[in-house]
Amino acid sequence: MLIVKKFGGTSVANKERIYNVAKRCIEDYQKGNDVVVVLSAMGKYTDELITMAQDINENPPKREMDMLFTIGEQMSVALMAMAMNKLGVPAISLNAFQVAMHSTSVYGNARIKRIDCERIRNELEQRKIVLVTGFQGINKYGDYTTLGRGGSDTTAVALAAALHADACEIYTDVDGVYTADPRRVKNARKLDTVTYDEMLELATLGAGVLHNRSVELAKKYGVQLVVRSSLNTNEGTIVKEGAKMEKMIVSGVAADADAARVAVIGLKDEPGVAFKLFNALAKHNINIDMILQSVGRKGTKDISFTCSDLDADEAEQIISDTLPFESIDVNKNVSKVSIVGAGMQSNAGVAAKMFEALYDANINIRMISTSEIRVTVLIDDINTDRAMNAIHDKFDLGDN
Amino acid sequence: MLIVKKFGGTSVANKERIYNVAKRCIEDYQKGNDVVVVLSAMGKYTDELITMAQDINENPPKREMDMLFTIGEQMSVALMAMAMNKLGVPAISLNAFQVAMHSTSVYGNARIKRIDCERIRNELEQRKIVLVTGFQGINKYGDYTTLGRGGSDTTAVALAAALHADACEIYTDVDGVYTADPRRVKNARKLDTVTYDEMLELATLGAGVLHNRSVELAKKYGVQLVVRSSLNTNEGTIVKEGAKMEKMIVSGVAADADAARVAVIGLKDEPGVAFKLFNALAKHNINIDMILQSVGRKGTKDISFTCSDLDADEAEQIISDTLPFESIDVNKNVSKVSIVGAGMQSNAGVAAKMFEALYDANINIRMISTSEIRVTVLIDDINTDRAMNAIHDKFDLGDN
Repeated sequence: MLIVKKFGGTSVANKERIYNVAKRCIEDYQKGNDVVVVLSAMGKYTDELITMAQDINENPPKREMDMLFTIGEQMSVALMAMAMNKLGVPAISLNAFQVAMHSTSVYGNARIKRIDCERIRNELEQRKIVLVTGFQGINKYGDYTTLGRGGSDTTAVALAAALHADACEIYTDVDGVYTADPRRVKNARKLDTVTYDEMLELATLGAGVLHNRSVELAKKYGVQLVVRSSLNTNEGTIVKEGAKMEKMIVSGVAADADAARVAVIGLKDEPGVAFKLFNALAKHNINIDMILQSVGRKGTKDISFTCSDLDADEAEQIISDTLPFESIDVNKNVSKVSIVGAGMQSNAGVAAKMFEALYDANINIRMISTSEIRVTVLIDDINTDRAMNAIHDKFDLGDN
Repeated sequence: MLIVKKFGGTSVANKERIYNVAKRCIEDYQKGNDVVVVLSAMGKYTDELITMAQDINENPPKREMDMLFTIGEQMSVALMAMAMNKLGVPAISLNAFQVAMHSTSVYGNARIKRIDCERIRNELEQRKIVLVTGFQGINKYGDYTTLGRGGSDTTAVALAAALHADACEIYTDVDGVYTADPRRVKNARKLDTVTYDEMLELATLGAGVLHNRSVELAKKYGVQLVVRSSLNTNEGTIVKEGAKMEKMIVSGVAADADAARVAVIGLKDEPGVAFKLFNALAKHNINIDMILQSVGRKGTKDISFTCSDLDADEAEQIISDTLPFESIDVNKNVSKVSIVGAGMQSNAGVAAKMFEALYDANINIRMISTSEIRVTVLIDDINTDRAMNAIHDKFDLGDN
C-alpha cells in the first residue's frame, strides 16, 4: 500500500509530538507500506512569521511573504526526518522545489497544477519515508507560492491523487467529523462517513476539519479521505463518494465566526451596479460569500454581502473608491451558522425547521443563503453557541 | 557598475540593522548601479537551528541538517526584500534553487561549482535589487547543501566572479583587516591593502574576517575584495593581487583558539603508519592542520597533529579503531598564533624573531609549522593574548 498521511501544525508543535508522529508513520512503514508524509509548520510558527514580517513592513509583498512562509514547513520536515532517522528508519525531506510541486502563479493563494512524482517514487523505492512540505508550491517563474489557509490538506490530497495512493489520512486534533463542534454542542456525535459534498459544505462553513479546496480535489480525483486524530487511534470519519447515506436529512451544524457583513445603502438603481461593485472586490482577491440585494428608498437599491473579517475594512475602502452610495455599514460581530446534509435535497421544510429552532431560541436572523445541501443564516456572534445547540437539538443530531 | 555586497549575521540581527543594510544598498542602487546582496542568517539563528536539531537527534543526518540550515538565510533575504520594498525600492529574494547555485555533493561542506546567472540578470534588468541567500547550494541530487563556516563570503565572491561584478564588498563588524585583533592587541593597526595570499593565511589562521575559501576563489578569478564595516563608512581594507606592498615584512598577527593537539605515542615504526592514520581521519572529513612526527622510544614513533576542538574526540576514537599504539593524548587548551606577511619570503630570521618574542615573554612553544609567508606556533590558550602583544610589539606592527 502507498499511504499519504498529513499532520497539521499542532501535531508537530514540539519534540514529543514530533516523535509521536514519527512513530505512527513508522508503524505503517514497518508493515511494508510506502509512506509519504505531508507536514504543516510547527504550532503557531506561521503566525510568528507573519508577526516578524509585519514588524518590518506592515504590508509586505505577497511574493516575499510566501518566500518567508515556506521556511515553516521546511523546518518541520527536516526535524521529522531527523526524528525518524534517530528511530532507525531512513527518511528524507523534500520541499516544493525538490518534489517538484507546480502551482498557479498567485502568491498566497495558489492552486496545485501538477506534481512531478519521479523524485518521490525514487525515494520510496529506496525504502525511505518521504516527508513533503505542505502548503507550498512553485510557480512558472520558479518562485515559491503558498496554497492559502489549510493548504497542507490540499498538498496531501494532490499527492495522493498524483501517486495513486491507496489511502489518504488527514490527522488533526479532533477524532473526525462531528454533527457539530463538540466543544460547543455538548451531545455532538462523530460521523462514520460523509460525502464529499457534505464535507465541502462543512469545510466551507468553518467546521475547520478539512480545507474545502482539498475536498474539491479529493472529489475530482476520487481520493478517499480519512479524517482522524493524531492523539489517539480512534477510527475517524471516512469522506467518500456515495457513502452509505446515514438516515439523516441533516448531517451537521457548523459555525464560522470569521464573517463580516458589509451593507451598502443607497446605490443607484441602474444596470451594472452589482457588477462594478463585485468586480472591484474580485480584482483585490476579496472572497464574497452571501449576497443580498434589496430595493432601497427613492429609486436606489441596497446590497449586503459577507466576507472574511480580515477583508472587511479593505472592502469598505474599495467600494468607497468605486461607486457612489449613501452610506456603508460594516459589522464584524456576526457569525454564519449552517446546517448541511445530502438528504436535504429530497426533504422539504428543512430550512423552515431550522428557522423555527432559532425563533424558539429568540435569535434574530440577519441574512439567509441556501444551496442544495445547505442552509446558512447570519446571526450575531453572541448567539452562536445557543443557535448551534438549538438547531442540533431540533434535528435530533445527537441521537443514534 | 554591478556591485555584489555581502552582509553577515550580525548586520541583519534585528529590524534596525536590517533597515540600516537596506539603506546602504539603496544608496548604491540609486546612483544607477546594479546591486546584488548576499545575506547570512540573522544573528545567532544558525546556532539556534543546531540546538533545535540536536534536541531531536544529537547526531542528525547532514543532509537534513543542511535542509534545516538553509531556512536561516531564506528568512534573512525575505525580510530584507520586505524592508527594501517598504523603502520604495523593488527588491527580490532568491534562494539556491532559484539562482541556481550548483555545488558539489558533500553536505555541510560543499563547494560552489557553477552559478546560473540568467535569473539574476533578468531581475537586475528590471531594476530590482537582487537578494541572494548566502551559505547554500544545490547538488546534483537536487538537494540543499551548505558551504561550511563563513560560506556566505564564498557565495558573494562566486557571484561576483560569475556576474563579472565591478566590485565585491564584504561587510563585517570590524573596519577591515588589522595587524592583529584590535580587541586583544591595543595598538593594532588597520591595513589599507593586503594580498590574497596574506589574507588567505590570516583567514586560515582564525583572523575571522574572511573565510579562506572565499579568498582562494577571489584569487583564482581575480575578484578584488573590499572588507569594511556595516556600522560605519570607513574605507576598509582592499584585498587584491600585487597590492602595493607595504614596507613591512610581517603584515599581521592572528590567533585561533579552535585548535586541539592530538598526540599519538608509541606507533609502530613501519611504512604506511602515517598514511593509515591520516587516511582514516580524512575519510571522516576531519581536517588536520599542523603535523609533527618524531622518533619514539624502542623502535616506535610518535605523531602529533592539530585539528578543530570539535573534531578532537572523534579523531581520538577513529585512531583507536585504526591502529595499535601505546597511548594517546588530546589537549584542547591550546591555540595557534601566527605571523603572516608576503615580505617574509625574502627576509631571513623572521621566525627566529617571533620565537625570541615568545622567549622574552616566557611562553612555551608546543609545536611549530611554517609556510612561505607564515609562521605558526601552538601555545597554551592561557598565553594567547600575551603572545600576540609580544609579537606585535617585537615587529613594530603598530607603527606607521
